Amino acid sequence: MDYNKKALEIHEEHKGKISVVSKVPVKNQEDLSVAYTPGVAAPCLEIYDDKEKAYNYTSKGNLVAVVSDGSAVLGLGNIGGLASMPVMEGKAILFKEFAGVDAFPICLDTQDVDEIVQTVSNIAPTFGGINLEDISAPRCFEVEERLIQELDIPVFHDDQHGTAIVTLAAMINALRICGKTEKETKVVINGAGSAGVAIAKLIYAYGFEKIVLCDSKGIISSARENLDQYKKDILSITNKDNVEGSLSVALKGADIFIGVSAAGALKEKDVRNMNPDPVIFAMANPVPEIMPDEAYEAGALIVGTGRSDFDNQINNVLAFPGIFKGALEVRARYINLEMKMAAARAIADAIPTSELRTDYIIPKVFEKKVVDAVSEAVKNAAVESGVAK
Amino acid sequence: MDYNKKALEIHEEHKGKISVVSKVPVKNQEDLSVAYTPGVAAPCLEIYDDKEKAYNYTSKGNLVAVVSDGSAVLGLGNIGGLASMPVMEGKAILFKEFAGVDAFPICLDTQDVDEIVQTVSNIAPTFGGINLEDISAPRCFEVEERLIQELDIPVFHDDQHGTAIVTLAAMINALRICGKTEKETKVVINGAGSAGVAIAKLIYAYGFEKIVLCDSKGIISSARENLDQYKKDILSITNKDNVEGSLSVALKGADIFIGVSAAGALKEKDVRNMNPDPVIFAMANPVPEIMPDEAYEAGALIVGTGRSDFDNQINNVLAFPGIFKGALEVRARYINLEMKMAAARAIADAIPTSELRTDYIIPKVFEKKVVDAVSEAVKNAAVESGVAK
Repeated sequence: MDYNKKALEIHEEHKGKISVVSKVPVKNQEDLSVAYTPGVAAPCLEIYDDKEKAYNYTSKGNLVAVVSDGSAVLGLGNIGGLASMPVMEGKAILFKEFAGVDAFPICLDTQDVDEIVQTVSNIAPTFGGINLEDISAPRCFEVEERLIQELDIPVFHDDQHGTAIVTLAAMINALRICGKTEKETKVVINGAGSAGVAIAKLIYAYGFEKIVLCDSKGIISSARENLDQYKKDILSITNKDNVEGSLSVALKGADIFIGVSAAGALKEKDVRNMNPDPVIFAMANPVPEIMPDEAYEAGALIVGTGRSDFDNQINNVLAFPGIFKGALEVRARYINLEMKMAAARAIADAIPTSELRTDYIIPKVFEKKVVDAVSEAVKNAAVESGVAK
Repeated sequence: MDYNKKALEIHEEHKGKISVVSKVPVKNQEDLSVAYTPGVAAPCLEIYDDKEKAYNYTSKGNLVAVVSDGSAVLGLGNIGGLASMPVMEGKAILFKEFAGVDAFPICLDTQDVDEIVQTVSNIAPTFGGINLEDISAPRCFEVEERLIQELDIPVFHDDQHGTAIVTLAAMINALRICGKTEKETKVVINGAGSAGVAIAKLIYAYGFEKIVLCDSKGIISSARENLDQYKKDILSITNKDNVEGSLSVALKGADIFIGVSAAGALKEKDVRNMNPDPVIFAMANPVPEIMPDEAYEAGALIVGTGRSDFDNQINNVLAFPGIFKGALEVRARYINLEMKMAAARAIADAIPTSELRTDYIIPKVFEKKVVDAVSEAVKNAAVESGVAK
């Protein structure tokens, strides 16, 4: 099927994908007097007296901004905020369809970090949470960190943490099949952008100790010159043997390859140099680091990609709807590591051990029970870790 | 009826009033591939090549931001952005219910003019128009002027122009009943905030020549000290005889009183000093400058207020839905004076001359034909004045 043609048709037919509708009737003068003036003054004054009441009387508590500056959209690169609007509208409707969370696209006309932080802070009163999307690294790290500091609502850069959570879920089930432990498993992540860095941090927190992170110049090691601060910082949890060299060097004796890089970045010969029964997650989109048939040919036991037309699709939509649903329901101040790990476990556990197979390590996108499982797990983790209100 | 109690109940029951829904199906993998990845890349690239295509492939063209800093909300004063959310949600659902225009509340966490302008400019790619709301004077003038300069979509401060348009519509029909001309009619406007200034400008452009504007210190004249720039500028079109003194002085021999000020600001004795058959629009909310029974007692021929429980309700909802609908449909770059005057005429003309009565000079809010009449008139005026795309 030609998705491009069909996508253009359906976007043009409906003129976009979102609509804003009323939850209350506005059919007569009395409706108007309750939903608008003069009655509307009453909830305004309640909120003026106690700002927490915004969660009782407005849509804030179930409303997420999907914010992008369009600097790293899908595999398209820096196309700008306006051109990113179809993706952000798409994300908004996924929030609604999968989790019942209202979400609204905010496409920015700036790519300046200070301006992004100030703009998002300034519009935050409307929202119960901020989902950052498709903002390029390393700017995305600073934008997220500063917004988390500044705002009293959860801020979550999905390209970092959504990807990391679903990847960790797939790794948990892959290890169940392989019978290996986190401690002994050597993981090589190729791609040190927003996803690669976030995956390294999350899986380290989860218990993986042998992690090597590579970028387009090879292994990130202390010998490398001109590393940005985020790559320098990641050395405290990766490459503990301080190995230098190419991706090929890193892959010798590795158990899991995680690709968040570019088409064709993984060669068959490198798969053959990995430990027996290697696990390959080749998530570059639309063309993965290695095609599944090649990876299997080279000896892979389990292969996952970002694509829906292969088995084991590692897709953020398994994570972000349930994560925000849970975080909003308990009014979590942050989305912390405990909540992210709980989400990953919930996604992994959505497949009973008896049903795990090498071609089914991660639930399919439309197994909607996943959203509730994730949201429950996130809520519990928020409460237990003390970030729920 | 206790609107406050009912308003609190309905706002709490629904947790606010707006919801964001999908215009396209998202029920299976194929839907997802068209509305989201990989298909969504196609409209993104079309817009990247030609930004005008955002109007074909996204919701932008029918989407209005309702922006407030909460500095002048209803009669409640400066309650801040968060507490203004119920009003802005209310406005958003009126856009949808009356005109089919999608609208979304943006409640700001800043009241700094520079920050407001920058923030709204930065989020503008998502929207086809900006409705500014409940921003206090004189800041509102600068905010609107700078955004109009900066953006390529219509920006409209409803407290200024919506009020001015509906007031002019009421004046047009009042003169039809009185048999007077604009030229000979003396108009006194009490209140020199956003609405008062905008009314003066619009009715002057329409042909009224004898306009006196008063603020809480009396008539605005060149003798007054410490006038802000906006009040100084308005002297070029008001108070041509340069009269000094109080509101009572201004009202001697006046034909029309327009109150956009405060409860009780107009006394019966001042009405008695006006010309015979005076017209009184006492629009302070919820308590008008003079109660209708007192105004009639003092000799008024026609009385209008902002309230739905009296005749002749002068309500912005007669204007803004149709104005934005029309402006968006022809992709107007600005909402200019011609469009505003056309909207006022369309509202006035919605009552056939044969049906005009002193207690029915302005259509009722739920005469929904008004929206289409206004939108058609605005479209034609935009095309004729050369601001349509």
